[in-house]
Order: sequence, then C-alpha cells, then structure tokens
Amino acid sequence: MLNNVRVILSHTSHPGNIGAAARAMKTMGLSRLYLINPRFFPDAQAAAMAAGADDILAKAVVCATLDEALQGAVFVAGMSARVRDISQEVLAPREAMPLVMQQAQQPVALLFGTEMSGLTNDELARCQLMVRIPVNPDFSSLNLAAAVQLVSYELRLAAGQGDCGAPEVNPASAEHVEGFFRQLEETLVEIEFLNGKHPTKLMHKLRRLYARARLEPEEVNILRGILTLTTQYHGQLKRDVSNVQSD
Amino acid sequence: MLNNVRVILSHTSHPGNIGAAARAMKTMGLSRLYLINPRFFPDAQAAAMAAGADDILAKAVVCATLDEALQGAVFVAGMSARVRDISQEVLAPREAMPLVMQQAQQPVALLFGTEMSGLTNDELARCQLMVRIPVNPDFSSLNLAAAVQLVSYELRLAAGQGDCGAPEVNPASAEHVEGFFRQLEETLVEIEFLNGKHPTKLMHKLRRLYARARLEPEEVNILRGILTLTTQYHGQLKRDVSNVQSD
Repeated sequence: MLNNVRVILSHTSHPGNIGAAARAMKTMGLSRLYLINPRFFPDAQAAAMAAGADDILAKAVVCATLDEALQGAVFVAGMSARVRDISQEVLAPREAMPLVMQQAQQPVALLFGTEMSGLTNDELARCQLMVRIPVNPDFSSLNLAAAVQLVSYELRLAAGQGDCGAPEVNPASAEHVEGFFRQLEETLVEIEFLNGKHPTKLMHKLRRLYARARLEPEEVNILRGILTLTTQYHGQLKRDVSNVQSD
Repeated sequence: MLNNVRVILSHTSHPGNIGAAARAMKTMGLSRLYLINPRFFPDAQAAAMAAGADDILAKAVVCATLDEALQGAVFVAGMSARVRDISQEVLAPREAMPLVMQQAQQPVALLFGTEMSGLTNDELARCQLMVRIPVNPDFSSLNLAAAVQLVSYELRLAAGQGDCGAPEVNPASAEHVEGFFRQLEETLVEIEFLNGKHPTKLMHKLRRLYARARLEPEEVNILRGILTLTTQYHGQLKRDVSNVQSD
C-alpha cells in the first residue's frame, strides 16, 4: 500500500532538501518521489543528502505541471504550514494519514509546497484534505525534509508497520519469582536485616521494586545465585570462626 | 514540562546535525541541548542548519562526560537504532514518550549516540528505557536530526500539545441543509433531470455526496444561490420564448 503513495515536492529551491526528503521517505518505506519544476535537479547536493536513497532520486519523476504530477491519483493531501483562510478540512498527521491509507488501494499523493511559501492557492484547490503538523507556535520553521520525515513516519504507522522490532520480553513465571522472594526473605532474616520488627512491610517494599522491574527468568536466576553465595559465604565464615574457637 | 526535557547528543561528528537537531527541537517546543564531546562545536555549519534556532545552540551545554550531561536527570531514555542484545525495555516513540512525560516534573534526558554507531554499551547501561523508531528494515539509515525531529514530535504530542491549529469546522444545521435539498429536488424536477422514474434513489445519492462533504452554512447559501439563479434564468428564458411566440 505504501507503494501507492507518491510524495510530490513543488518548486523546491534547495536540492539538499530533495535528497534529504528521499532519505526520509526511504527510511519509512516510501519510494515514489515526484518533483514539479525543481530549481536544481539532478544535483550533487541532492545525491549527497540522499545518503543511500539514491535509487529514489534516480527514479524520481520530474514534472512540468501539477496536473502531470497528480495524474492517476485518486486522493491528494496537501501540507499546510500556515494557518490560512482555507475551506478544506485541516487535520494533524495522526488523524490524516489513516485517511490517506484508506484511499491507498489506488495512487494517492502527498503534496508539499516550496520551502519559503508552501502551497499556492491553485495547489491548495486540488487537495481533498489539508494536513498541518503541530508545531511550536513561536517557531514553526519546520524544514521541508523534516516535514516529509514526520508525515512519512505517520504514514508508516497508519499502514500498520509501526513495529519497532523490540525484543520479546520474557517475563519470569509467578512461582519462579516467589521462589526468589522466599529465598530473599530467608537470607534477610539470616543476616538480621529482617529482625522480626517489620518484616512484612519491608518485604512488600522489595516486592514492589521487583514487580516494577518485571523480572525475567535469567534475572531471577542471577539474584538467587547472589543469595545462595551470600549464604554459603556466611556458612564458610561461621565454620572458620568455630574452627578458630575450637583451636 | 517540555522545559524539563534535555536532548543529549553524544560525540556528534557532523556539526550540521547539531544545528538541524536544534531546529527540530525548537519546532516542537524543546530547548535544552546537551553535547558530549562534539567533534566540532561551535561551528558555522551548525549555525547555518539551525536556521533560527541559534538561541538553542547559544545555550547548549557542552560536557566532557556522560555523567556531566546526566547530572540531575531522574529518567534517561536512550535511542537505539539497531536491534541488539540489550536487556533494557525497548519501546516505539509513541509508547515511550508518554512515559518520559510522566517523569518530566523533574529533569529527564533523551540520549542520542553518534551518527555512525549509536550509543556505546556504557551509555546504554545508563538508560532506564530504550526507544526505537520503527523504520523500513531494508533502509534504516535515519539521519540523527531526523530522529531528534521524530522523537521531539512524539514528545510534543505526549505533552498534549498536538493541536495543529486547524480552523473550527462550522457545520450547517439540519434544517438549513434540508432547505437546500428541497430546493435542489424542486430544481431537478423543473429541469426534468428528475422525471419521476427514480427520484428518491437519485436524491439519496445526492444526499450521500453532500453528507460526506459536511456542508458549512456559507456553502449551503452558495448552492442555494446557484439553484435560485438557475430557476430565475429559466423563468427569464420562458418569458422570452413566450414573448417571441406572442409576436
């Protein structure tokens, strides 16, 4: 579905932005770049900023007109940086990109205006939906490629590809953790940290800490190993002491 | 609360990335930049890429060590680009940034590693939480400033500042819209577009179209004005015809 999404950059001034936009697109799985009358393209700076996304630059479609760039697209979302008197619906990317993906069984377009002035009124009139990225009202100067990055990211998430590949968390079983708590309490009694005054209260505090940490099986084993060796070491010391006393 | 969030860039190679990161931060309302041993800083390229966020560069805290950069921080989230054998919890920004904001009553830190190799193991060990941006597995080469942009954006949204300033939609009232549909039907009967065969079916299709468009009061007035003038024009033509016939 992301293959049906084209990113259209209109009248881009800085070729570096074209390259950085291509890189941003590729990191999020987009590949179709259309350029309406770019000031400089192809360009060495665009290639440098693409940093490995040069395949996207190589197959970028350079168009003379907006009509050409929109050919075949069934849905057009325009990026609007400024608040203006426009009648189109304006949504934040989080709300807008799921709507774009709904249409992306067929070609859809994301239309970005120039760095300086955004979309023209004629371009705005061709959009079914306006998208505005929420920004700091005191500094709304979002770079063009940064805007492409944010919108492509939201599109990837809307396409259901927001898995960050986090490792599977492997939680320890309740009985495994209980075994650790029993051993911990025994050890704490043995070293007289728990002296019978507030054992339950202290054990609850320790339970709370380890509950928050969501122990994994290997971690339970490490902690129990520490307790076992603590007890063994104490046993050894006691034997040494009794040997000395019996001498 | 965003004022309690510091962005720490560790051992950054390219000063342009420092400037672009400052710009990215500022667009999302972040302001506290910490730099651990940057290769070049201050630097003209950093200033150029900051594009108006030079106040953030001017008050950036340059540190010699990670300890210095983390001083006072109660929570540290590290950015991990690669899948590695780490024991920390790894979350996507959308899940992670609300957790960061929960801690941001006090200073919290977002820790970014170098462009080439990310965080070191020693840096990883200082993080309570790892954050990984979901990317195209075939091209995960996210620029450092782009990563700062995405995470800052998610942080802004998590801080409840995700309003994009969309204009208030002002929907037309049901009776206003019904008046339009009545007039539309009358006009369509008059011009014999509705000829009594399937008037209900056709009107339902037109209702569906205009329902989807969620008409505003001004739009209802424009559409009714068109219908009124259509009828008047027809009336004029009919009078002209009858005048000709009576001649």
